[in-house]
Amino acid sequence: MKEIKIVEEIRKLAGKPGKGIIAGIGDDCAVLKYAGNKYLLWAADMLIQGTHFDIKNAGYEKIGRKAIAVNISDIAAMGGIPKYVTVSLGLPPKRSLNTVRALYRGIDRICKEYGIEVIGGDVNRSLKLVIDVSIIGIVEKKRLLRRSGANKGDLILVTGPVRNGRKEHLDFVPRLKEARFLSGRFRITSMIDVSDGIAPDMGRICAESRTGCRVYADSIPLSKGLTLEDALYFGESFELLFTMPVVEANRLFRSMRSGRGDLKYFIIGEVTGENTGLRLIQKEGRSTALKMKAFRHF
Amino acid sequence: MKEIKIVEEIRKLAGKPGKGIIAGIGDDCAVLKYAGNKYLLWAADMLIQGTHFDIKNAGYEKIGRKAIAVNISDIAAMGGIPKYVTVSLGLPPKRSLNTVRALYRGIDRICKEYGIEVIGGDVNRSLKLVIDVSIIGIVEKKRLLRRSGANKGDLILVTGPVRNGRKEHLDFVPRLKEARFLSGRFRITSMIDVSDGIAPDMGRICAESRTGCRVYADSIPLSKGLTLEDALYFGESFELLFTMPVVEANRLFRSMRSGRGDLKYFIIGEVTGENTGLRLIQKEGRSTALKMKAFRHF
Repeated sequence: MKEIKIVEEIRKLAGKPGKGIIAGIGDDCAVLKYAGNKYLLWAADMLIQGTHFDIKNAGYEKIGRKAIAVNISDIAAMGGIPKYVTVSLGLPPKRSLNTVRALYRGIDRICKEYGIEVIGGDVNRSLKLVIDVSIIGIVEKKRLLRRSGANKGDLILVTGPVRNGRKEHLDFVPRLKEARFLSGRFRITSMIDVSDGIAPDMGRICAESRTGCRVYADSIPLSKGLTLEDALYFGESFELLFTMPVVEANRLFRSMRSGRGDLKYFIIGEVTGENTGLRLIQKEGRSTALKMKAFRHF
Repeated sequence: MKEIKIVEEIRKLAGKPGKGIIAGIGDDCAVLKYAGNKYLLWAADMLIQGTHFDIKNAGYEKIGRKAIAVNISDIAAMGGIPKYVTVSLGLPPKRSLNTVRALYRGIDRICKEYGIEVIGGDVNRSLKLVIDVSIIGIVEKKRLLRRSGANKGDLILVTGPVRNGRKEHLDFVPRLKEARFLSGRFRITSMIDVSDGIAPDMGRICAESRTGCRVYADSIPLSKGLTLEDALYFGESFELLFTMPVVEANRLFRSMRSGRGDLKYFIIGEVTGENTGLRLIQKEGRSTALKMKAFRHF
């Protein structure tokens, strides 16, 4: 069964969010009321040995780093600033103190780099290594970005060149700086981080916004060695995928020309009405369906 | 390597908590500044197939229930009220939609019962079933309970009769009502929920409070079939273990006699100076060491 179907199922079972909850299931973070002009952002992301990483290839330090990085990416995608994490470990019985130290070294370094504090956790025995990180961040109410605000006619953009998720998934730099730049200066109508591929993640924006989309195959900026197929369906690039009105995109690109931004934003398509569906436009103009499915990782 | 040693190691690596953090590693929840006269409580607890439950014996609905119950118990132990949870699942590849529904039915029922909302989550493939729940609660500043406030001369109490963790670990009722009753009316100097056994959990209170303790073996109220050994070292009873000054204990027992409380609080020992260590006093007066070790679950 697909993750998307399971999440849909859970959402049906969970019902409508209550008061105090600005956003629940269906965004990268849950959004809760908080003090002053701010909201609290809250997310959890689990990494499992064999599903998200292979210990031999990765090494514990990089795994620790990635467990935090994917959570920072969730906060970034909502326009916010990461603040605190708790780390729950499932640790195979024979692992040594050195394993824990290496894992924690990876966790500690990236946390220091982003000004995040580790404030809790839990250690358990497990056959396979499991790291589940829960993160809390804050976001100014005005800067909150969600998946649900895309409008017909908006442009679709991605940060890039899109990284190669197969090669860089352990070392990626979460696009926090870019997300804060965008959320502070421009009217962004929706945003998500690309964990499963541009196609399914764009599909999520369209589902939440009740729109369709047209993505132009040859406009997707591929990093060296990345295939279009992987950019669309493999994911693990953790690029930001977002939408904004044309007039705002013009402001963004003007700000880049004047040197205050940089050259990492690319237009890859446009938001359409819901009944267009999700379309991929090939170079020669032929249109095919963008699928919601993602490759299984590793 | 023991969990306690790993947590100590992580704590050393994490360093001192920064501003905005009232309590970090070393309590049942992390405590963050929040609005008005309240703090935010935040915990995460992971259940892993084979470590915390056996699917054949438990069934998915009870596993879902337990995953939430242990987190409610963490909030209770800090004196607070549970509000929101996120649920991260690691799901074996061949599990059906019915599995997810049964798990979620267990989650949903206990959440409704305690007024908790499920507001986020994550689904992943895993060889073994993993459920990691992260919980947020609130507590009035005055009612916050920690592990670190026990003083020499305080009495040690436990809710009970202490449940049999081997038999009841899936069905236990978190002692939220009792914790709120205690935190609202009495000066409780420290509290913890018994997940690993009265001995190691009392050891945690003593370590955080820099005290020792004397626990009287024949004063521990055992439910039917529970051995003293299991009460001390098996855990999974999720009773509340707490300390309070003698004068407050008198108030508690007077309130029970006058019918406003009930008969579920038992004095089991007293807090001593740090150099006494952790002592178990047998019926005949002989004293042995309370050990910090816990049985491995299942």
